[in-house]
Amino acid sequence: MAQINSHYLKLKSGYLFPEIGRRVSEFAQKNPAARLIRLGIGDVTRPLPDAVVKAGKAAFDELSRAETFRGYGPEKGYEFLRRAIAENDFKPRGVVVDPEEIFISDASKCDTANMQELFDQNCRVAIPDPVYPVYVDTNVMAGRTGSADGQGRYEGLHYLSSGPESGFLPQIPRERFDIVYLCFPNNPTGVVATKDELKRWVDYARANEAVIFFDAAYEAYITDEHIPHSIFEIEGASECAVEFRSFSKTAGFTGTRCAFTVVPRALMCRNSRGEKVALHALWHRRQSTKFNGVSYPVQRAAEACYSDEGKKEIRELIAYYMENAKFIHQTLSKMGFAVYGAINAPYIWLKTPHDTDSWGFFNELLHKAHVVGTPGAGFGACGEGYLRLSSFGSRADIAEAMERIRQIYDI
Amino acid sequence: MAQINSHYLKLKSGYLFPEIGRRVSEFAQKNPAARLIRLGIGDVTRPLPDAVVKAGKAAFDELSRAETFRGYGPEKGYEFLRRAIAENDFKPRGVVVDPEEIFISDASKCDTANMQELFDQNCRVAIPDPVYPVYVDTNVMAGRTGSADGQGRYEGLHYLSSGPESGFLPQIPRERFDIVYLCFPNNPTGVVATKDELKRWVDYARANEAVIFFDAAYEAYITDEHIPHSIFEIEGASECAVEFRSFSKTAGFTGTRCAFTVVPRALMCRNSRGEKVALHALWHRRQSTKFNGVSYPVQRAAEACYSDEGKKEIRELIAYYMENAKFIHQTLSKMGFAVYGAINAPYIWLKTPHDTDSWGFFNELLHKAHVVGTPGAGFGACGEGYLRLSSFGSRADIAEAMERIRQIYDI
Repeated sequence: MAQINSHYLKLKSGYLFPEIGRRVSEFAQKNPAARLIRLGIGDVTRPLPDAVVKAGKAAFDELSRAETFRGYGPEKGYEFLRRAIAENDFKPRGVVVDPEEIFISDASKCDTANMQELFDQNCRVAIPDPVYPVYVDTNVMAGRTGSADGQGRYEGLHYLSSGPESGFLPQIPRERFDIVYLCFPNNPTGVVATKDELKRWVDYARANEAVIFFDAAYEAYITDEHIPHSIFEIEGASECAVEFRSFSKTAGFTGTRCAFTVVPRALMCRNSRGEKVALHALWHRRQSTKFNGVSYPVQRAAEACYSDEGKKEIRELIAYYMENAKFIHQTLSKMGFAVYGAINAPYIWLKTPHDTDSWGFFNELLHKAHVVGTPGAGFGACGEGYLRLSSFGSRADIAEAMERIRQIYDI
Repeated sequence: MAQINSHYLKLKSGYLFPEIGRRVSEFAQKNPAARLIRLGIGDVTRPLPDAVVKAGKAAFDELSRAETFRGYGPEKGYEFLRRAIAENDFKPRGVVVDPEEIFISDASKCDTANMQELFDQNCRVAIPDPVYPVYVDTNVMAGRTGSADGQGRYEGLHYLSSGPESGFLPQIPRERFDIVYLCFPNNPTGVVATKDELKRWVDYARANEAVIFFDAAYEAYITDEHIPHSIFEIEGASECAVEFRSFSKTAGFTGTRCAFTVVPRALMCRNSRGEKVALHALWHRRQSTKFNGVSYPVQRAAEACYSDEGKKEIRELIAYYMENAKFIHQTLSKMGFAVYGAINAPYIWLKTPHDTDSWGFFNELLHKAHVVGTPGAGFGACGEGYLRLSSFGSRADIAEAMERIRQIYDI
């Protein structure tokens, strides 16, 4: 009798975004006349940069000729892309990353989900709250937790509560953990960590031989020049951290799919006998065995993000979304909402009015304003009482969404 | 102290193909004048069909305009592709697959690697030998095995030995297993299973409440009209099997990346209390949480495989490779080699001459003929004494490779 992985049954509910999708479809079906404005899921709306499109098409042309056809690429990605990343994303910030330390993938979601596989079942895991649900759910699926309590918190995971009193920053724990997830600029709150704050995490990790899973998918949205874009800007981080990056939000790749992860060669963990083992070799083994590399046209498209034309177009894309973020922040603040984020990130973290709960406010916005947000509670217990709005819509939609909200909530 | 997943350290050596790559690079570096002919890794060499290239480029164009831009797609893939698959790959063979049962992914490698995650740690697993190494390695990584013995066989896995006495077909075991991996047309041996043979496996699975992981990545190469292309051609299979399919070998997508897996809604497993749980829902949850869908241009490219033009071009591609297979089979047979496969599959399974071992013959071919094969021992203990050749090269290369081998081994 084939018995399933019973840990899956501990998962509280559907993954957050499909659940939102379900509720939105249901509403749309019952209200076909309503024009929905979607500021929920963090999905971009502006077209791909021309440089990217040109490169993707040219690569398809290469595949159409026997002389330039390419079959399987390296599981870790082509060197042309890994080299472009090292040169453009890291070197200008004074960070030396060897292209061999970079692994191209189809999604940061996959990489943040899969990295925990390399670690022992009994590793002690600390996860911020609120947080991108994938970090939690994949540890549940892997069997590192017990059941969830009434708040949706799983026994055996340690939650780093991050509320308004700490500016939504997780605080360094007193206890020792083996794995710590961090995400800056933060999804969902939009807050960032200063160099000093990241240094404290790196010091903590080195003192405790912990590994930091650093999700920097939104680094391109940092506007404050003093904020680090990579954890590797902190000395010693290459001995204790992996970093996840993505082209999704930077260059509009949510439908095109490309991301990468840096696993430094210097990062050592322990085997069961306490001997050092390089995480780099284990991740390479995992990717070689369970992954077949990213589509060649997509890797060429990603490479084009680093051309002069590509860089210019991406700067414009990001400026467009950040103007949206600023506008949402200003409008809602003026209306009396407590608003966070939006300065170094494309997300606005909004206190719900009149102590409405997250899903209640989500429903209210959906039904009264026909605006889709993301309930903060979907990101963890500390997200209760908040809602995330994304700035990825078109200017016109965002203006209309704000106007609709203003008509209902002039608080 | 972050302790690693110690199961990774049980893996006998690097994943087979990177290991071959390493040896080949080493040889090429020392012998820069040698013109290598690669018949090792099962990688295609003919260009992508025009219909596919056209569709991929048109999709990039769509992404370049705000009105037609698409961000995140459904994690399970777009309906246009799932519907085309159901209509074209299954319906003409009398198999009803609901498009909702189809999950698009970037690789059968990933899907065959990840499916085991849905099952309990203590499930008893039966795997043919020789076999695609991913099935074995991913169960080792997941902790379902002990260490490997001298032959490279892991304690706790059951091997279905398939040698020449059974026509390289795995035999139905007497014991009860929870998960059985099958691959037809077989990689590496190239043999196929008849309808009766598959029916015996389905009967076994239903009687034992086992799940069959059926890898049909090479079904397009079947030339014998009596051989089933899908396990779902067998009555009752939708209650006990998942099926993996790929565009890699069919349409030359090894560098473009697209595959799919069918998880029937009727397939039930058990939870720890013995109650039925639908595998479909679990796989959907897994893919929603750990995967972000396939690149939109790639899904459009895959859809084009089912256009009239695409179908015609694909038939020509397959005919080209199968001509190669036939030629290799005939040439080596004439030379006195014992040769299997090559009739319903793009692989030729070759007995090594004079009782040379697999890696020895691999080295001999590499050093004397500058031809790269794949050592049978890399596929399992029962592959010892064999070598796999693939028919994916160009006609001219294959003719030259055969000539070079003839000069050395006129046995």
